[in-house]
Amino acid sequence: MTDPLPSGSTIGILGGGQLGRMLSVAAARLGYKTCIFEPGGDCPASHVANFHLKADYDDAEALKQFAQSVDVITYEFENIPTEALDLLEDLKPIRPGREALRISQDRLTEKDFLTELGLQTAPYADIPDAAALKAALAEIGTPAILKTRRFGYDGKGQARIMSPDDADTALAEMNGAPAILEGFVDFTSEVSIIAARGLDGSVSCYDPGENVHREGILRTTTVPAALPASARTDAVLLAAKVLNALDYVGVMGVELFVTPKGLIVNEIAPRVHNSGHWTQNGCAVDQFEQHIRAVAGWPLGDGARHSDVVMENLIGDDMDRVPDLAKEPNTALHLYGKAQVKAGRKMGHVNRVG
Amino acid sequence: MTDPLPSGSTIGILGGGQLGRMLSVAAARLGYKTCIFEPGGDCPASHVANFHLKADYDDAEALKQFAQSVDVITYEFENIPTEALDLLEDLKPIRPGREALRISQDRLTEKDFLTELGLQTAPYADIPDAAALKAALAEIGTPAILKTRRFGYDGKGQARIMSPDDADTALAEMNGAPAILEGFVDFTSEVSIIAARGLDGSVSCYDPGENVHREGILRTTTVPAALPASARTDAVLLAAKVLNALDYVGVMGVELFVTPKGLIVNEIAPRVHNSGHWTQNGCAVDQFEQHIRAVAGWPLGDGARHSDVVMENLIGDDMDRVPDLAKEPNTALHLYGKAQVKAGRKMGHVNRVG
Repeated sequence: MTDPLPSGSTIGILGGGQLGRMLSVAAARLGYKTCIFEPGGDCPASHVANFHLKADYDDAEALKQFAQSVDVITYEFENIPTEALDLLEDLKPIRPGREALRISQDRLTEKDFLTELGLQTAPYADIPDAAALKAALAEIGTPAILKTRRFGYDGKGQARIMSPDDADTALAEMNGAPAILEGFVDFTSEVSIIAARGLDGSVSCYDPGENVHREGILRTTTVPAALPASARTDAVLLAAKVLNALDYVGVMGVELFVTPKGLIVNEIAPRVHNSGHWTQNGCAVDQFEQHIRAVAGWPLGDGARHSDVVMENLIGDDMDRVPDLAKEPNTALHLYGKAQVKAGRKMGHVNRVG
Repeated sequence: MTDPLPSGSTIGILGGGQLGRMLSVAAARLGYKTCIFEPGGDCPASHVANFHLKADYDDAEALKQFAQSVDVITYEFENIPTEALDLLEDLKPIRPGREALRISQDRLTEKDFLTELGLQTAPYADIPDAAALKAALAEIGTPAILKTRRFGYDGKGQARIMSPDDADTALAEMNGAPAILEGFVDFTSEVSIIAARGLDGSVSCYDPGENVHREGILRTTTVPAALPASARTDAVLLAAKVLNALDYVGVMGVELFVTPKGLIVNEIAPRVHNSGHWTQNGCAVDQFEQHIRAVAGWPLGDGARHSDVVMENLIGDDMDRVPDLAKEPNTALHLYGKAQVKAGRKMGHVNRVG
C-alpha cells in the first residue's frame, strides 16, 4: 500500500454544495486543506474550504490551475463533463475513478452494469424513440417511470406513466433526451447502504438506513432499518460486489428496494450520499471522513453505529422550524449556509440521536 | 430575548489557533460565516473560515475593518490587548463580555473575584517584590508556585518553590513581571466543568471531566469523572455562580481541584477549553456549537453526554502515532493542520468513545 497523502496536502473537490462542504470539514479534521472547484459564488463549500476556484467546467485554464494546486481530486456530484475529467485525469489522480462516473452518469449503462454483476434491478428498457416506448410498455407494463438517461437528481427528469395513454406526454417531458423506462417495483421499504472502499481494497459498510422519500426527495433516514439479518448481509455483499467490480476508492451510496423477492438495486451514487448523513452523529468516523480517508490513502475508519439516529432533511420552508429544532433534546442541527431559501432546496438536516 | 443572529451573518473570532478552527466549523454548521483575526499566516482556523484578516493587534485600521465586516465578536484566547478590545467594543458586541476578560487576564484579580464569590481557591498572595515573596512564603509555606499574573498558559510563566531557598531563583524567572504566589493544594484529582450561559441567562453545564496534566500541559480528559454525586452538584452550582456573577455569554472552562475539603477553583478560562474537546464525540451539541449558540443568541443546545469518552491530546511527536490511531476502533481523530511539529505543541487530539 502506498503512503497516505502527507498532512497539509490539498484535496481538490469538484462541486461546492453541501456535500463538498461536509467533505471539506472532514478533510480539515484529518489535517488536509481543500480547494473547491465550483462556478457559483458564495457556495456552501466555499465557506469552510481553504480555496475556492470559481470557474466553469469548460474553462480549461482554470481546470489546469485547479489540478496543479491540489494533490488528489474527488467530487461531490456525478454529472461532471467528460472533457473536464479528461483534462484533470492527465494531471492528478481522480478518486473515485472514471469507471464509476461513466457508469453512474447514465441510468442505462448503470442498469446494464448491475445486471451483468448478477444483481437485481427494476425491469428496464432503452427508449430511443416512441416505438421503443410502446414496445417496452407492452412488455414491462404500467405503472412505470420514464427517466432521462443522464443528469437526473431529486426526481428531476422523470415522468410517471400510469397507463399506455400517458406515453406521449411522458416522452415529451424528456425534451428529446435519451431515456430509459423502468418498471414499477412493489417494495416493502427503501433502504440504502453507504459503503466505502480504501486504496488498499478493504471494504467497510455502514449499517443500512431506511429511507422515506416524498416528491422524489429524501425526507428521512432511520437507523437501524427494520431489516432481517439476512437482508443486512445481502446488502453488504451486494455493495462490496459493486465496489470491487469498479476497483472503487471512496464512499458510495447504494439505494435498494426491499421486496419479498430480495433486494433490488435502485441506483448507485459514486459519492457521499444524503442517506448517510446520520453517520455524523451515529459513528466515530462519519461518511465524509471515510471518503477523505479512502481518497487520501488512509486505512478506513471505524464506521460502527454507536447510536440510533433519525436524520431528517430540512427542505425549503422547513428552515422556519429551526428555532424550534434548536431547542429539541438529542438533536444535532447541520445547516448548509445557503443564502436563499427555495421550495425543494435542501437547506440542512437534523440528526435525532436516540 | 432578542432574536438570534440571522442565518448568513458573520461571526468574528479573535485568534486563529485550533480553538478558533473548531469554533469556525461549529459556526458553519449553524449557517454562519466566520472571519478570523490573526497575525500569523496559514493558521489552523484560516483553513476552515470564510475570511482571514491577517494583521497585528495594534493595527487600528485592521481592527476597524474586522469589526465592520462581522456581526458579533468572540475570541479563542483571553490575552487580547486591552486597546484592541476598547476599539472593537465601540463597534460591535464582544461576547463573552469585557468583565470576564478583565478578570481572567490577571491571576490575582481572578483569585480575588472567586474569593469574593465565596468560592475556595488555593491560598495566594500578591508578590510585588522580594520582601512580599518572603512574607508570603512564611505564611503559605512550601511547596508553592510563583506565577506571572498575566500571559501564562500551558505551564509557562511558572516557577515551583520547594523551599524558601528557591525564592530568589523563582522571582528571577518572572523577569520582573508582576507575580502571585499560590500555595500547594493536596488534591485527589483535577476535574473541569465546561459551562455555558446563553444571552437569555440560561445556564447549561457538561458532565465534569477528569483531567491529567503532565509538564503543565493537559494530556487526557476522561468522562464520566470519578466524582461523588454531591461533588457533581457542587461543580455545577459553582460554575453557574461564576457565569451569573459575570453576566457571562458563551462557554467557560472552570478547572477544579477535588480535595477532602471540597472543590477548589484552580482557574477559569472565558472560552472553549481543551478539557471540553470530548464533547465533540460525546454529545449531540459540542462545546464549540454551544459557544456559537450563546454568542449568536440561540437557545443553548442539549449537552447531555450520550457516550463515555477519553480525550487524549496529541502533542509534538505524538503525531507519529497517527497512522496507528487511524486504525483504532471507536476512535475519532481531530487534527489541527499545523504545518510544523514542535515539542509541546498541541497538534490534535483523539476522542475514544466507549
